[in-house]
Amino acid sequence: MKRIGIAGATGLVGETLLRILEPGPHRIEDLRLFASAKSAGTKLKFRDREYEVQEVDPEGFKDLDVAFFCLEADLARKLVPQVAKHCPVIDKSSEFRLKPDVPLVVPEVNASSLKGHKNIVANPNCTTIPLVVAVNPLHQRFGLEKLWIASYQSVSGAGKAAVEQLSYENEFVALRRTPDSKGSPLGPQIADNVIPQIADFDAHGHNGEETKTTRESAKILGLPNLKVNSTCVRVPVSVGHSLAVTCRFSQAVKVKDALHVLKDAPGVVLRAGNDYATPIDCRGNDSVFVSRVRQGAEPEELSLWIVTDNLRKGAATNAVQIAELLKE
Amino acid sequence: MKRIGIAGATGLVGETLLRILEPGPHRIEDLRLFASAKSAGTKLKFRDREYEVQEVDPEGFKDLDVAFFCLEADLARKLVPQVAKHCPVIDKSSEFRLKPDVPLVVPEVNASSLKGHKNIVANPNCTTIPLVVAVNPLHQRFGLEKLWIASYQSVSGAGKAAVEQLSYENEFVALRRTPDSKGSPLGPQIADNVIPQIADFDAHGHNGEETKTTRESAKILGLPNLKVNSTCVRVPVSVGHSLAVTCRFSQAVKVKDALHVLKDAPGVVLRAGNDYATPIDCRGNDSVFVSRVRQGAEPEELSLWIVTDNLRKGAATNAVQIAELLKE
Repeated sequence: MKRIGIAGATGLVGETLLRILEPGPHRIEDLRLFASAKSAGTKLKFRDREYEVQEVDPEGFKDLDVAFFCLEADLARKLVPQVAKHCPVIDKSSEFRLKPDVPLVVPEVNASSLKGHKNIVANPNCTTIPLVVAVNPLHQRFGLEKLWIASYQSVSGAGKAAVEQLSYENEFVALRRTPDSKGSPLGPQIADNVIPQIADFDAHGHNGEETKTTRESAKILGLPNLKVNSTCVRVPVSVGHSLAVTCRFSQAVKVKDALHVLKDAPGVVLRAGNDYATPIDCRGNDSVFVSRVRQGAEPEELSLWIVTDNLRKGAATNAVQIAELLKE
Repeated sequence: MKRIGIAGATGLVGETLLRILEPGPHRIEDLRLFASAKSAGTKLKFRDREYEVQEVDPEGFKDLDVAFFCLEADLARKLVPQVAKHCPVIDKSSEFRLKPDVPLVVPEVNASSLKGHKNIVANPNCTTIPLVVAVNPLHQRFGLEKLWIASYQSVSGAGKAAVEQLSYENEFVALRRTPDSKGSPLGPQIADNVIPQIADFDAHGHNGEETKTTRESAKILGLPNLKVNSTCVRVPVSVGHSLAVTCRFSQAVKVKDALHVLKDAPGVVLRAGNDYATPIDCRGNDSVFVSRVRQGAEPEELSLWIVTDNLRKGAATNAVQIAELLKE
């Protein structure tokens, strides 16, 4: 991985990618940074050099080993197939995730799905990634039948403007005043509030994030008929997504057996007993934190509390891991 | 309801009780305010008078029509039975809620359980109240079998010190600095974070709030074998508890039929379609807001988003409603 392109380098995930690659071990000899027209010209530091961000242009990706795409779905739709003629593209957008011929990859779970890829690999949604990292080892052992998910998602999942909106509103709330949230990228006020909407609602009343967690989990786990009840909610947290999850398995599961499985699960940091992780604990960390593993209301059910840094393992770290697999 | 005593008048629920009673319609001729020793002497305004808060003493409740108890469980344990010799007590603490001879009452749901009360009536937990107000009408129609709950609970549920802690931490977060959360009544930092613990863990790893929502719902709904998966989480919100709930019924349920039931349900404000309520919307309101009613993963399942002002319908309003029933 010596020649790398990043499209969307000025966004939160693009910046996180640079921070992850910066300390090594990759000897990067050719780094090309791209963004949409409005961010072109921005200068970014990486290791000992300054790079000027170019407006994204498929021709600019020639002779690269890999391209990381961190742009919105509408831009990805147009650009990714063109760039894929030059090099493998790892795309963070939702555009290609459910296409049958595009692998949707979480390396700890379904690395083998990369085989025969056609230069487009999709990086899953930032809530789906920690979910399947935690649940797949249990599924392999006990046979997953059904999931209930309630998410506590940070605003950084909605990008830089959303993080700035929370900061702006926080200043008002700290002064016990009411912020003006008109035009917020999150819809209603988020400071001192929670918002049960992430992306648009479909005809059945599910918001976009709920549909993504449901469909992407089914694809990654290879369980097309997996039953999922998902409620996705934005909370006034800057970084770090949390999930309250109940799994139903095809057999009774003892907590101690589940802990035994999770203790050695790849990508998982397990906190056992009454010790638990919060978003603050996971920031800057590349693991999925699993805690509060306990029996559900029936012997076949198990509840978990899952937390991860949504910009790292929820997005950039997972993309780097995929790139490393592609190189192999 | 002319002669009223309030124990714990200086706490958040006590203060909210006074705010609810203030505009009427009750002609209050004798109001006695009590608190623990450390708050005795505080002066509180109510209507056109100032009242000095007395240290709580069972003898002080003689000749009252009703006493509202808003003290912690350990104080309630000792004092409530003594005060109950003088007048009916509506107790907000968890101490008596599960006792077989103590009615645990949400007026919209089980007012009839008050019959034959022995002067102690328990006010349920602030998460349980909105849950059963929303779910009971559906249960009456479709037969409830199982519940999944994930809560997004505000810090005011943990009292004044917790609200002050959030305010203190918010000031640091607004300045992009790290607060010192040592000694916080909430445990870890709550600003810019979520905490999956409300009260102590039991031997099975359930936190106290999870056990309360489970057991109290079963008692109020009259479903001793109700299966409940509950995860209770504190979020950085001052007032307003939210709940992501999935109900499983004994029969298939259509969303339109559920909406028809909820539209006329007592105590419920229904927001249909893609309109939803957030904690900010419910503050100062006495209703339970139900929105995002949608089909679950199976035909027998329905998901809801429930929000209420935890100090009002979650606590004080419910207590006033019980008092009104006792008078009848």
